[in-house]
Amino acid sequence: MPTSEHMTKVVQAYVAAFAKKAPDEAISLFAEDGVIIDPVGSEPKVGRAAIREHYDGAMATGAKLTLDGPVRAVADCAAFAFHVDLAWEGQSMRFDVIDIFRFNKEGLVQSMEAYFSPANISRSA
Amino acid sequence: MPTSEHMTKVVQAYVAAFAKKAPDEAISLFAEDGVIIDPVGSEPKVGRAAIREHYDGAMATGAKLTLDGPVRAVADCAAFAFHVDLAWEGQSMRFDVIDIFRFNKEGLVQSMEAYFSPANISRSA
Repeated sequence: MPTSEHMTKVVQAYVAAFAKKAPDEAISLFAEDGVIIDPVGSEPKVGRAAIREHYDGAMATGAKLTLDGPVRAVADCAAFAFHVDLAWEGQSMRFDVIDIFRFNKEGLVQSMEAYFSPANISRSA
Repeated sequence: MPTSEHMTKVVQAYVAAFAKKAPDEAISLFAEDGVIIDPVGSEPKVGRAAIREHYDGAMATGAKLTLDGPVRAVADCAAFAFHVDLAWEGQSMRFDVIDIFRFNKEGLVQSMEAYFSPANISRSA
């Protein structure tokens, strides 16, 4: 079982990867057969190639993540609330999201689920 | 599938039930065969009697819930960050928690998972 400290550091590294626009650093946190469901309810993306495509695309938008409150890391999961700022067709957009990372025994992210709906998207300036 | 609006209202009713110290109002939001895992990693509590015992106990502590940021309600789930203030052996305690509610087709909470660890508990005064 990964420790709370390890899981919290992984979340911090994930946020930092966006700040550095370094998709490889985000991708390296995932298991080879990791799964992304973003948002919850959409088709799961499975495996390293799909994960790479996901983060290459996400970071190409210039998305920056800011944690809102502490990481809640317990058992084999980390839950964290954050907002994403990005520019989309000249508009500054904000997404309020909660992610759940589930870890494998090696301390890699086995699954990521992102909770947000259109009600959690707002525009500014 | 429940709407985002419905799921958000259920979360607000849940928070309000704590404010009113009204366990029945929280319990009525759950399916008869609902499941509580609080915190994640602990033994699930299954069914109306176990849910009643859970909320009778939780509200007896005087716990008050405050949402931290918007409810993220998507597909059949609501995710929300909050903190709990309560008094425990004369100490004022704060718990930072993220809950996931999963809903059934009738719009009742089928499962509740609470994410927090000892690192998310702090004392004040």
